[in-house]
Amino acid sequence: MNKFSIAQEILQDLNYDGWLIICNEDSDIHSPFMLGVKAHARHYIYIAANGNHIVIGTPMENPMIKKSLEEQNVSCRIESYSSISDLKSKLGTVVDQKRIALNYGEILNTSQNTEYADCIHLGDYLSLKSITSKTEFFSAAPIIYKLRSIKSVSDLDDLRETCKITMEILNDIPDWVKISMTEREVKARLDYEYLKLGEPSFDTIVATGANSADPHHNSSQQKIKEGVLLIDTGMRVNQMCSDITWTYWIGGAPSEKFLKAYSALNESKENSLKYYIDGMQSNLPAIKCRESLANSGYDHEKLFFHGLGHSIGFQVHDVGPRISQNVSKDEILVENMVYSNEPGLYWENEWGIRIEDDVIIKKEKCERVTQAPKDPLLI
Amino acid sequence: MNKFSIAQEILQDLNYDGWLIICNEDSDIHSPFMLGVKAHARHYIYIAANGNHIVIGTPMENPMIKKSLEEQNVSCRIESYSSISDLKSKLGTVVDQKRIALNYGEILNTSQNTEYADCIHLGDYLSLKSITSKTEFFSAAPIIYKLRSIKSVSDLDDLRETCKITMEILNDIPDWVKISMTEREVKARLDYEYLKLGEPSFDTIVATGANSADPHHNSSQQKIKEGVLLIDTGMRVNQMCSDITWTYWIGGAPSEKFLKAYSALNESKENSLKYYIDGMQSNLPAIKCRESLANSGYDHEKLFFHGLGHSIGFQVHDVGPRISQNVSKDEILVENMVYSNEPGLYWENEWGIRIEDDVIIKKEKCERVTQAPKDPLLI
Repeated sequence: MNKFSIAQEILQDLNYDGWLIICNEDSDIHSPFMLGVKAHARHYIYIAANGNHIVIGTPMENPMIKKSLEEQNVSCRIESYSSISDLKSKLGTVVDQKRIALNYGEILNTSQNTEYADCIHLGDYLSLKSITSKTEFFSAAPIIYKLRSIKSVSDLDDLRETCKITMEILNDIPDWVKISMTEREVKARLDYEYLKLGEPSFDTIVATGANSADPHHNSSQQKIKEGVLLIDTGMRVNQMCSDITWTYWIGGAPSEKFLKAYSALNESKENSLKYYIDGMQSNLPAIKCRESLANSGYDHEKLFFHGLGHSIGFQVHDVGPRISQNVSKDEILVENMVYSNEPGLYWENEWGIRIEDDVIIKKEKCERVTQAPKDPLLI
Repeated sequence: MNKFSIAQEILQDLNYDGWLIICNEDSDIHSPFMLGVKAHARHYIYIAANGNHIVIGTPMENPMIKKSLEEQNVSCRIESYSSISDLKSKLGTVVDQKRIALNYGEILNTSQNTEYADCIHLGDYLSLKSITSKTEFFSAAPIIYKLRSIKSVSDLDDLRETCKITMEILNDIPDWVKISMTEREVKARLDYEYLKLGEPSFDTIVATGANSADPHHNSSQQKIKEGVLLIDTGMRVNQMCSDITWTYWIGGAPSEKFLKAYSALNESKENSLKYYIDGMQSNLPAIKCRESLANSGYDHEKLFFHGLGHSIGFQVHDVGPRISQNVSKDEILVENMVYSNEPGLYWENEWGIRIEDDVIIKKEKCERVTQAPKDPLLI
């Protein structure tokens, strides 16, 4: 069943007439997610509960959209607009007097975080309201949650393949990374490998020395020097992203402090992975990870200042509960969700270390789709 | 003068207390534009008319933001939030009872298109409204227009350098592109060159044969075959993007039809560039380009179905009037705006051709920062 058909069923359950996605210059990830192709010019995707799906786009990009939808066996009318007034008229006809789901959600005010759905821009919403006074709007958050948090069989196959390829690329790193290459050169080479088959799933972090103490470091022109080299990277081949962090040691012998931290982190990862299972509270793996780090003698509150894991999918930070000690115990992991497990320890102005694996939530124990080295790879 | 100081002056002119940028997962380009670094986690940037600028971000990313602002000599308080309620409280204190500019704009309903400012998500706006009942909100469009449409001296230096590097890379293409490489392989190699120094400014289009008839073709696994090879590409080194299209012929001798079209397009580009000057209506270059194509015997209404040019800057599609025959004659080009000139001719299911140069608008005649080959490069 293609995504349009799945969304159509959800719309029927929710008693909405349609789901409207507004996208301009890549502003809404749900456009490439649904279309299977990236359209950049302003376009509107209307998934209808009665199956009369419509895309309103530009003459320049419609042929590409049509081809992609045909490949997915999606039956959908595709219309061009020639001017803003033409667009308003066509859009008005589509949404008039209907019950329509729109991509908005909130983080600051709702009991449930629906931030993942928050894609429509305020100006687009105001424009839409002004041309359709009798249309009722609702948040598309429940549609998006169902469509994206639990992965399909084909998504999971895609994930396994993507992760396998990414690990092969990470295993090769000691063969070509050298001291005095810049962080950016390493990032560029990794991106090159990804782009031959797909694309990077996010901005790869290459962090040498003290830069590795900064979990979201932007790869810089700094030259790689002896010591810690942290690489947090991933790619997307088709529909699913990989997200993997390996921390290497480059040049000479690793310090005792590094080896001890690596081993403790690896242990905390293994201990917490036991709780990546269907029905589990999503705060528990993080609590168990931190217990493990405390047992190894680390002040995790100071040295490990981010969550343990996040949902992975079409986006590297996908829809679903976070895995963190701060998350409500009502947030539950469900079979066939996909998650990262990424404990870290960071000493500011010295160095940091992080190990990250991706897994599929299953009934008895999780399925591991990546495997960080048990001992640090030496370059 | 750094960007915070420029924005501060604009705020004083407009009699607003501050400009609030809300960014989460790269949702607002004005965050990296102002900070000089990409922060991914939810953060808030408040530029104050009185100079008391504040960033509210995460403990994980604040050190990186602090470092970048220090490098730009921006004086700014940086605060961390530890939870959503903490964030609400800190944010409420910052914006309470003030006159605040927010990043929203409209395309469908206003006489002036302020779509470029439309970045805030509806959910974020609703959240903000609910915690600050006595705050007045305004569109930040005039601030953004002033900050981004007309480029500074250092921006223009940066542009010249970026364009020079991009052209060197494009000139080298005949040395390494071969028949039967895939479009993606070519894209990956170009991205690799860019990533060593900066980053791609958009998804490079590599289009072989019939794919070149699709102006926004997504580079695919299709193998390059004899005939037309269209490459639309660009990079950003620091603050400015390049955006260049060259159409090559690969293998054997170019067809008569291709050579004639290339020559006519080049002529239409040269003719229209005379109108890329300060004070000119922005529809006129497009009208002149189409006159030139008509004089060469082409049905431009059918074969050339996109605008002639767009503003270029921190984003490849930047702020400023479009250059199109459909644009109101009230839209005017101004000195030190930066524009593309990209006429094309497309025969569906056969092939397409496009030549694109970037220029700086000047008083007497534009300054050319790129130069597409007068005759097509052969591979």
